[in-house]
Amino acid sequence: MSKKYVYLFSEGDSTMRNLLGGKGANLAEMTKLGFPVPQGFTVTTEACTKYYSDGKKISPEIIAEIEQKLEQLEGITGKKFASADNPLLVSVRSGARASMPGMMDTILNLGINDKVVEGIAEITGNPRFAYDSYRRFIQMFSDVVKELPKSNFERIIDEIKESKGVKLDTELTADDLKDMVARFKQYYKEKMGEDFPQEPKKQLIEAVQAVFRSWDNPRAIVYRRMNDIPHDWGTAVNVQTMVFGNTGNNSGTGVAFTRNPSTGEKELYGEFLMNAQGEDVVAGIRTPQKISQLKQVMPEVYEQFVQIAGKLEKHYRDMQDMEFTIENGKLYMLQTRNGKRTAQAAIKIAVDLVNEGLIDKEQAVLNVDPKQLDALLHPTFSEQALKNSKVLATGLAASPGAGTGKVYFTASDAVDAAKKGESVILVRLETSPEDIEGMNAAAGILTARGGMTSHAAVVARGMGRCCVAGCGDIKINEEEKYFIAAGKRFNEGDYISIDGSTGNVYEGRLETIEAKMTGDFATFMSWADEARRLRVRANADVPRDAKAAVSFGAEGIGLCRTEHMFFEEDRIPIVREMIVAKNKSQREKALDKLLPIQRKDFEGLFTAMNGLPVTIRLLDPPLHEFLPAEQEDIKNLSIEMGISFEELKETVCDLHEFNPMLGHRGCRLAVTYPEIAAMQTRAIIEAAINVTKNDIDITPEIMIPLVGEAKELQYVKEVITKTADEIIAASDIQMKYLVGTMIEIPRAALTADEIAKDAEFFSFGTNDLTQMTYGFSRDDAGKFLDHYYDRKIFESDPFARLDVTGVGRLVKMAAELGRSTRPDIKLGICGEHGGDPSSIEFCNSVGLNYVSCSPYRVPIARLAAAQAEIKRKRAGKSA
Amino acid sequence: MSKKYVYLFSEGDSTMRNLLGGKGANLAEMTKLGFPVPQGFTVTTEACTKYYSDGKKISPEIIAEIEQKLEQLEGITGKKFASADNPLLVSVRSGARASMPGMMDTILNLGINDKVVEGIAEITGNPRFAYDSYRRFIQMFSDVVKELPKSNFERIIDEIKESKGVKLDTELTADDLKDMVARFKQYYKEKMGEDFPQEPKKQLIEAVQAVFRSWDNPRAIVYRRMNDIPHDWGTAVNVQTMVFGNTGNNSGTGVAFTRNPSTGEKELYGEFLMNAQGEDVVAGIRTPQKISQLKQVMPEVYEQFVQIAGKLEKHYRDMQDMEFTIENGKLYMLQTRNGKRTAQAAIKIAVDLVNEGLIDKEQAVLNVDPKQLDALLHPTFSEQALKNSKVLATGLAASPGAGTGKVYFTASDAVDAAKKGESVILVRLETSPEDIEGMNAAAGILTARGGMTSHAAVVARGMGRCCVAGCGDIKINEEEKYFIAAGKRFNEGDYISIDGSTGNVYEGRLETIEAKMTGDFATFMSWADEARRLRVRANADVPRDAKAAVSFGAEGIGLCRTEHMFFEEDRIPIVREMIVAKNKSQREKALDKLLPIQRKDFEGLFTAMNGLPVTIRLLDPPLHEFLPAEQEDIKNLSIEMGISFEELKETVCDLHEFNPMLGHRGCRLAVTYPEIAAMQTRAIIEAAINVTKNDIDITPEIMIPLVGEAKELQYVKEVITKTADEIIAASDIQMKYLVGTMIEIPRAALTADEIAKDAEFFSFGTNDLTQMTYGFSRDDAGKFLDHYYDRKIFESDPFARLDVTGVGRLVKMAAELGRSTRPDIKLGICGEHGGDPSSIEFCNSVGLNYVSCSPYRVPIARLAAAQAEIKRKRAGKSA
Repeated sequence: MSKKYVYLFSEGDSTMRNLLGGKGANLAEMTKLGFPVPQGFTVTTEACTKYYSDGKKISPEIIAEIEQKLEQLEGITGKKFASADNPLLVSVRSGARASMPGMMDTILNLGINDKVVEGIAEITGNPRFAYDSYRRFIQMFSDVVKELPKSNFERIIDEIKESKGVKLDTELTADDLKDMVARFKQYYKEKMGEDFPQEPKKQLIEAVQAVFRSWDNPRAIVYRRMNDIPHDWGTAVNVQTMVFGNTGNNSGTGVAFTRNPSTGEKELYGEFLMNAQGEDVVAGIRTPQKISQLKQVMPEVYEQFVQIAGKLEKHYRDMQDMEFTIENGKLYMLQTRNGKRTAQAAIKIAVDLVNEGLIDKEQAVLNVDPKQLDALLHPTFSEQALKNSKVLATGLAASPGAGTGKVYFTASDAVDAAKKGESVILVRLETSPEDIEGMNAAAGILTARGGMTSHAAVVARGMGRCCVAGCGDIKINEEEKYFIAAGKRFNEGDYISIDGSTGNVYEGRLETIEAKMTGDFATFMSWADEARRLRVRANADVPRDAKAAVSFGAEGIGLCRTEHMFFEEDRIPIVREMIVAKNKSQREKALDKLLPIQRKDFEGLFTAMNGLPVTIRLLDPPLHEFLPAEQEDIKNLSIEMGISFEELKETVCDLHEFNPMLGHRGCRLAVTYPEIAAMQTRAIIEAAINVTKNDIDITPEIMIPLVGEAKELQYVKEVITKTADEIIAASDIQMKYLVGTMIEIPRAALTADEIAKDAEFFSFGTNDLTQMTYGFSRDDAGKFLDHYYDRKIFESDPFARLDVTGVGRLVKMAAELGRSTRPDIKLGICGEHGGDPSSIEFCNSVGLNYVSCSPYRVPIARLAAAQAEIKRKRAGKSA
Repeated sequence: MSKKYVYLFSEGDSTMRNLLGGKGANLAEMTKLGFPVPQGFTVTTEACTKYYSDGKKISPEIIAEIEQKLEQLEGITGKKFASADNPLLVSVRSGARASMPGMMDTILNLGINDKVVEGIAEITGNPRFAYDSYRRFIQMFSDVVKELPKSNFERIIDEIKESKGVKLDTELTADDLKDMVARFKQYYKEKMGEDFPQEPKKQLIEAVQAVFRSWDNPRAIVYRRMNDIPHDWGTAVNVQTMVFGNTGNNSGTGVAFTRNPSTGEKELYGEFLMNAQGEDVVAGIRTPQKISQLKQVMPEVYEQFVQIAGKLEKHYRDMQDMEFTIENGKLYMLQTRNGKRTAQAAIKIAVDLVNEGLIDKEQAVLNVDPKQLDALLHPTFSEQALKNSKVLATGLAASPGAGTGKVYFTASDAVDAAKKGESVILVRLETSPEDIEGMNAAAGILTARGGMTSHAAVVARGMGRCCVAGCGDIKINEEEKYFIAAGKRFNEGDYISIDGSTGNVYEGRLETIEAKMTGDFATFMSWADEARRLRVRANADVPRDAKAAVSFGAEGIGLCRTEHMFFEEDRIPIVREMIVAKNKSQREKALDKLLPIQRKDFEGLFTAMNGLPVTIRLLDPPLHEFLPAEQEDIKNLSIEMGISFEELKETVCDLHEFNPMLGHRGCRLAVTYPEIAAMQTRAIIEAAINVTKNDIDITPEIMIPLVGEAKELQYVKEVITKTADEIIAASDIQMKYLVGTMIEIPRAALTADEIAKDAEFFSFGTNDLTQMTYGFSRDDAGKFLDHYYDRKIFESDPFARLDVTGVGRLVKMAAELGRSTRPDIKLGICGEHGGDPSSIEFCNSVGLNYVSCSPYRVPIARLAAAQAEIKRKRAGKSA
C-alpha cells in the first residue's frame, strides 16, 4: 500500500489540513493537545479525489484501510461495532480544506441496527432515547445515502402523532418511536426493494461514499463558486465516536466563540441546549441559552470549557469557533476552527490580537478577508430616519448593516427580483442551505426562527449581508407569501427596512447614511497601507463619488467615464443634436454648447480631488445608446427635437449595429468625428487651467478608449495634443498633461510595444478585454454560463475574477511589451477586477502601478493590495 | 549635403527601383544600355517621403539639387530652360516603386511661356504646334498644380469652336490657338489672382510638388489598398526632355509589348498613332493602328524598335511594355517595364521563357501573380448557350473571361448594386481612373471607345475582370442611362453577357461552364507543386464543391460547415423542431430524424474525396439563425409547425442576443445540448464506416468550433469519443478518427498549450480571430473602416489580408504553444485568409501544415504557397 488514505485522529495535526480537511486536522490537533475529543479517524481528501477519478467508485484498498482503522478505533474506545453489549456508534461528517458550513451531508448515530438499538435501550435504561436515535439514523441514512425524500419520513411522523393525538415529538413514547422505526424500515424496503442495512460496516462504507458524493451537490458547487474554492480539492470524511447530548438533563450540546463574532469583543460568546443533539442548535428550531448561563447549570464543565477555549485561542492565535457536547456530565470537544466573524469583529480582533502581542501587524492584515470589508462600507440608517420610523418588530442582531428593499418569501423569487434590479429583503421562517443563492441576491435577510448561530446568521455574516434572525414578533405565511407584524399585513413586494446591528425591523424605506473609517478600522487600514506597493484609485464620474472615494482613501481617479455626463438631463438633448447633425459644422455647433457644461464637470472633479491624479476617458459608447429604439419613443423625441420622424428614424437605423460591442465606439468615434475629442480635450484643459486659480495643481490624464492599432492612437493623440497645446500656449500657465490609452482589445495587448510609443500610460480595461479574449459578451453569456458552471468547465465568473491563464497572459504580455518601449510607463487597471482581491493579487504580481475600482471598494482594494504584497514577499519572490 | 535626392538618368540603374521608382530606374537602365532615351533626371522617392514628413513642404536643399541637375541637363541636351532660341521643354511624371498606371499626375511641355512659345513657332515653323503645346501645358498645369477644373478649359475651347463654326480641334488655326492661350491665361488670372507663371524653374518646382501631392489623391489611395502597396513608399518624379510625336506626319507615338499581353503569344504587340502625343494613345480617344503597320509607315524606325524590344526582353528576362515617340523620324524610348498581362498570358509567357532557357522553373513560378489565376478559374459561356444566343455587338477582346449581369452606367451605381449582391456589367463610353472602384465591383466591363491598351483594357486585365473595349457597335447615353445595340434599347438593370475572350456582347444571361486546368496551366502548376511545402485543402460543404476542389488540386477538405446542410429545405423544419423542443427527449426525437440525412451528406462527401482527409466542423451558428425574426414570418412558421404563435415568439425572444457574434454558438451549443454533438458524431462515424464498403479508407477529422478553454474542449470531446468509440466497437471495422479544434478565439491561442493536450489538430479560424482580436465585427466595421483607410490608419482590409502584427502574433504563439505540448499536432488555417497570397506567405513562415480555402482559390493557394517557400529559401531562412 503506497498511499495512506485513512488517519486516526492521533496520527495527524493541524499542518495536515489539505489532506485531512479543516475539521479533521483540528480534531487531530486537539487530540495532540490532550483535549477531550471523542476519538475517530479521517478518510483523506485524496481518497475523495480518487473516488471521483475512479468514476465515482470507492476502491477496495480504501475500504480495507477504513476497516483496519475501525478495528483500531474499537481498541481505543473499548467499544465494538455491531455489539449490543457495548456498541460503538459513530458520526460521519464532511470536512473540506475550506469551511463550507451546511453545504455537505452528515450522518449521526451510525452503527445502530435492530440488535444494537435494544442493547442501547438496556445499557442506558432509556429505550425512548435508543429508538429516537435509531429513527434519526434511518432518516438521515435514507436521505443522504439513498436520496429518499425527508418529507416522506416527516409525513409518517405526523401520521403517528395524529393517531396518538399529540402535537410535539417529545410527547411520543418509546413504543411510539419503536413503531416509527418499524414504519420507517417498511417504507425504506418498499422504496429500495431491500431491507434497511443491518450491517454497520456496510452502513459506514455507504455513508462515506455519500459524503464524497455530497461534495458535488448543486448547492456545494454554487458555494464553491461564490467562495473561489476549487472543485478538485475534494472533501475529507471524519468518522468519530458518537457522544450524546440528548441522554437526559445531565447532557447537552453547544457552540461557542472565544470572542464575540459580531462585535469582536473579548468575551466567551455562544449558546447551548440541554438534552439536545448538535443539529438542534445549528438548525435553529429550539431557541438556546446563552453560554454564560452554563456557569449556573454546570459550573465545573463551564470552567473546563473556558480553560480549553482560552488555550485554543492562544494556540491558534485567532478567535476560535468550537462545538462541544456534554454527555452525562462529561465535556467533549467536537470541533474547533478559526471562527467566522463580521467585518467589524474581524477588524477589532485583528487590532486587539496585535495589541495583546499574539500576532504582528502583517499577520493582522492577512487575517481579515478583504471582501468582508464591504459590510463596513455600506450605508446605515440615518438618525433622522430612525427617529421618524416605527419599529415593527425586533429580532436578533445577527449580521450588522442596514438593508432596505421589497419583501420576497422564496430564494428563487429573491433571485428573480434582484436580477430585475430590485433591492430585496428575503423573509423566511428559517433558512436552509438551499436558500443560499437567494440570500446572496438579497440586500438583507429576516427570519422568524433561529439564534445567532443559526444557518441564516452564519451565512449572512459570511456574505456581508445584514440579517435579523429569530424575530418571533413576525408571523410568516410562506405559502401565501405574506407576514403579519404589529398587526399589519405585509405582502410580497412591500417595502421594509432591517437593521442587522440592532435587530430592528421597520416599515417602508429608510434613508441611509455613509459609513466612516475611524478607530480600529483606520488603524487597521494604516497597517495595510504600510504593507502595500500598489496604488489604489477609484472610478468616479461626478464630484460626489470622487469625494466618497477620497474619504475611503483613494489616491486618484483611475477612470472618469465622460459618457455618464452625457446622459444627464440637461445635456442629452444637446448630445442628440450632435448625433443627428448632418455635417461637421452642425456637429460643432452642438459641441460648442456642450463645452461649457463639460468644462464645469471637470472643474468639479479636479476640485474634489484637490491635486490627486485624474484620468479622464474620452467618449466611449456607441452613439445609438443616446437615442431611443422603440417606434413610439422615436416619434416623441422627433417632436421634441423639431425634426421629422423619418429623419430621426433614419438616424436610428443608420446607427443600428449587429454587434454593438464590436461596433462604432471608443476611439473609433474620435477617428470619425475628431471634433468630439477636440471638444472634450478643450473642456479638460480649460478646466485644469481654471482650477489653478484655486491653487489646485493638476496634471490631467487624457485616456483614449478601445485602441487596437498604434496608428489609431497616433491619430487621436494628434487631435488632443494640437488642441491642448494651443490652449496652454495661449494661457500664461505651465500645464502638463498625459495622453494614454485603455488596453481593452486583445490586439492592443499584442502590439503594446508599438502602442507604448505614443501612450504615456496604459489602463487595462479588463471588462472588455475579458469579453473579447473569451469571445463572449457579458450580456449574452448569462444564458449559457450556468451550463459551464454545472459542467465544471468554469469555476468562477471571469467577469468577477480575472482569468489569469488567458486574459492575464495578455495583461502580462502588454505590461512587458509596454515597459520594453517606455520603461517608466504608468500601468493601471480600471475594469471591475480592480476591486477584486484575487485579481488585485495578480495585478501586484505583474507589477502594475495602480488599481482603480468603485469608491466603496477602495478599502477592499487597499487591503487586498497589502495582502498580495505580504504574500509575495513571504513567498520570497523578487520585486 | 548628406543625402542625394536627385539623380541624372546616367547616374542610376535598374537595381535602384526603390529609390528611383520603376520608371526612373528603367530609364536609367536603358540609358546605361545605350538606347535612345530623352535625357533627364529623377527626384527620388525619399524626396517624396521627406516632402510629407516636412509637412508637405519641399526643402530648399532639394530645390537646389533639382536646379543643379537642370543645369547639367541643359549641358547634356544643349538646350536651355526659358530660352526662346533653343528651348528645353520637359515632362514631369510620377514613378513609384510599383506601377500605378494613371493613378498619379503628369505634366507635359513644361518650360514653355509667352516668350518660348514664339521661339518654338519660329524654330519649328509651326506656330499651330507651338500654341497647341502651350495651351495643353496651361491646361495640365492648371489642373494638376492649381486644381482648376478641366471642364472650364473645355468650355472655353467649345466657345471658340462655336464662334469659329468648327467641330474638331484640328480645324482650329494657329491664331485660334493663340487666342485660346490668351483666354486660358485670363481665366487663370481671374481664378488665381495672379498671372500664369512665366518662370520655367518656378513651373518645375510647383509641378514636382504637385506630383508628390498626387501620391495621396483618393484614387491612388484606393489603388494602393487594392494592390497592397504601402502608403509610406512615396513616388519618385521623373523630369525628362520632351520629344514630340505631334510635330507632323514624320512623328508619332506608340506603346508596345514584346509578347501578346492577352494570349502570351511571342509577337510584338501594340499600337501607335502618327502625329500624336502619348496621352492620345492611352486615353483611347483616337483608335490607333497596330504596331506591325509601323513597318510600312517607317520601316527603319520599326526595325530599330524591334531590335531594342528584343534586347530589352532578354535583358530583363521578362515580357516588356514599352512607350516610344518618333520625333521627326527619330525613335525615342520613353519607358520600359515588365508588362502587365492576363493570367493566361502570364502562364504561357512563364512556361515559354523556361523553354527558351531564359529563366528557371522557380523563377517562372515567381513571375505569375497568384491573384491573377482567378481569371483562369472562373466560368466561360457554355457552347450550348453561345449557340442559342444572338451577338448584339462585337468589340475588342480586351480581358478574357465571361461575365453576365445587370447593366449599370456609372461606377458608383455599379458599386451600390454589387453591394446588394447583384452581378454587374459596367457600361461606359470609356473608363478613367475615377472609375476604378466601379470596375472592381463589376463582373465585367464594356466600353464603346478605346483600344487594347486603353485604360479600361489595362485595368480590367490587371483585375482579372473580363472586358470588351472599343465596342463602337453600341451607342451609349450615359446621362439617361441606356444604350442601343442592334436596334434595341437596354436600360439600367437589364441583363447582358460579355465575353472578354472574343469581344462578343450578348443579350440576357448566358449559362456558364467551369474552367479546366490543362496544357501550360497544368505544367506551370506542377512546377508550383514541386516548390511548395504547405498542403492545400478546400472549404467545401457538399459533394459538388468537393469535386470542384479536387479538380483544382485540393488535397483534402479543411472545413466542412455542417450548418449549411441544416439550412437545406428538407431539413430546416426538423432543425426548427429541435430548436423549439421543450426538453432533451423532444430534442433527441428531432435529432433522430436528422441523423440519416446527415449521414448521407457525409457519405457523399467522403465518396467525393475518395480517401483524402476531411475535416468536419460541428454545428456552429447561434440557433436563432434558423428561425425568422419578423412578426409576420414567425406567424407563418408557427402555423406551419402547428404550434402557437406565442410559443414560437417566446423561443425567438429567448434566443435573441445583443451581440450574436459573442453569443451562444460554436461549442457552447454542444456544452448546452451535447445530444447535437452526439448525433453529428454518429452521422460522421457511421458514414465513414459505410463508405469503407466501397473501398474508401477515411480518417474523419471532427472539429470543435469556438473553443476558448481547455475544459470546454474536454467536455465536448468526451461526448464525441464516447459516441464514436461505441459505434466503432460495435462494428467489425478498425476505424481511426481525429478530434481537433478551431483556434478562433484569442483565449484559445493564448492557452493553446493546454488545449493541445486534447486536440489532435488546430485549424485557425482567422475570420473570427480577426474580429475578436481587433474587437470589431465585420458586419459593423464597414461603417467606420472607410474613415480608417482615409486617415491611413489601416492600409489593407484585415479580413482580406491577415494582420501579421496582431492576429499573426496570436497565430504564431498558438502554433508554438500547441507544438510544445504535442510536437506532431496538425496545424491549418480555414479562414478566408487561407486563399490570400500574403496571408499564405505568413502561414508558411510559421510552419503550418496546410491552408484551406474556397475551391476556386485552390490553384491560387498552391501557387502562393510555392512562391512563399521559394522566397523563404532564397532569404536563406531555416526550415
